[in-house]
Amino acid sequence: MSGYLVDDATLDEIEVERATYAPLAEATRQLSDLSIRTRVSPDDAARAQEHLDAAIALLGKDVDTESYGVRHSRIGVTRAWGNAVVGIRNPIAPPLTIVHHDERVSAEFELSAAYEGPPSLVHGGVSALILDQLLGEAAAAAGKPGMTGTLTVRYRRATPLGALRGEAHVDRVDGIKTYAVGHMADAEGICVEAEGVFILPRWARKDSAAPTKFE
Amino acid sequence: MSGYLVDDATLDEIEVERATYAPLAEATRQLSDLSIRTRVSPDDAARAQEHLDAAIALLGKDVDTESYGVRHSRIGVTRAWGNAVVGIRNPIAPPLTIVHHDERVSAEFELSAAYEGPPSLVHGGVSALILDQLLGEAAAAAGKPGMTGTLTVRYRRATPLGALRGEAHVDRVDGIKTYAVGHMADAEGICVEAEGVFILPRWARKDSAAPTKFE
Repeated sequence: MSGYLVDDATLDEIEVERATYAPLAEATRQLSDLSIRTRVSPDDAARAQEHLDAAIALLGKDVDTESYGVRHSRIGVTRAWGNAVVGIRNPIAPPLTIVHHDERVSAEFELSAAYEGPPSLVHGGVSALILDQLLGEAAAAAGKPGMTGTLTVRYRRATPLGALRGEAHVDRVDGIKTYAVGHMADAEGICVEAEGVFILPRWARKDSAAPTKFE
Repeated sequence: MSGYLVDDATLDEIEVERATYAPLAEATRQLSDLSIRTRVSPDDAARAQEHLDAAIALLGKDVDTESYGVRHSRIGVTRAWGNAVVGIRNPIAPPLTIVHHDERVSAEFELSAAYEGPPSLVHGGVSALILDQLLGEAAAAAGKPGMTGTLTVRYRRATPLGALRGEAHVDRVDGIKTYAVGHMADAEGICVEAEGVFILPRWARKDSAAPTKFE
């Protein structure tokens, strides 16, 4: 189990990690989109496949046995770089850059073809995924980090692929439960609303390496 | 807007499409995992990056301007190959193979490092994403396809990365609303439960090309 690692990474080492691996994730995001939309010939696809296999062989030479986890350096930098929504090393993540404004959080992002459910529309579950992260970060920003207990998502209207924004804030706190609310919107207004209850799990309450936020 | 396309693809053409492009998606899934877990040197990473850039150039030579949509061939094959959960051409999708048993649906799947939220655990929003798809397919399997109106997800305990299974069925139907329930489980039992309300949108009720399921 990778756990909440505390490491001795220096700022230089963290920047080397970012410069070395984040561009691979960004290229893989482009490949995810092209894998869906390309119409090239079987010959060109086979040549591309050889390049992908070569990249897999190179990157597979030395691989961590664990998932990324959440890494806290002693100099105060938290890397949730494997996270499915915000992880800069995770090609599945758009990735969102979540901005903190006091106790409200927000993000502007693009969802491309890889996030599709019904034709031309964002998959309902992708909206839930993004809102879960936004609500969780709002809870953390209010000093109440936790894991999701319940998530309720209401789909007001179809969410088109393309430019979107999301925001969330804490509505109320009741003991170990933090209630966060938020929404996703396109240029025309709100598409999806969500409410989440976040609970600090027992193991995290006891863990001296517990993070200040869960990402 | 890609819409619900009805095309003239033959079985042979569909098999050529699968054989040409699905392996690209599978390789890109491996790259997504490696992008997070690789520890190779900056030199090896740079060499891999060159291969990825070469693959992007090849696949970018001819690209559909639209997202994949849901394609219905006149011979009765439906391709939701761009779908974020089940799309075989979508590297973000694990992809799930959802098995239909009368009005219940189920799937067995693996979630790797790219689906992480808290350390070693499945992102709560990823569970919501997968359950949304399972519940929607259960509604469709019961002859009541629709788009998600409301999704409620209850997290009973942390969901570990690794081998998981999910299932869903329709609980009740009330006019245009179909209520589906389901869960995700690991070897120890249920981790997450969900209920979803699925509604056939007005535009789909009027559309003669409306599909028998939304994927």
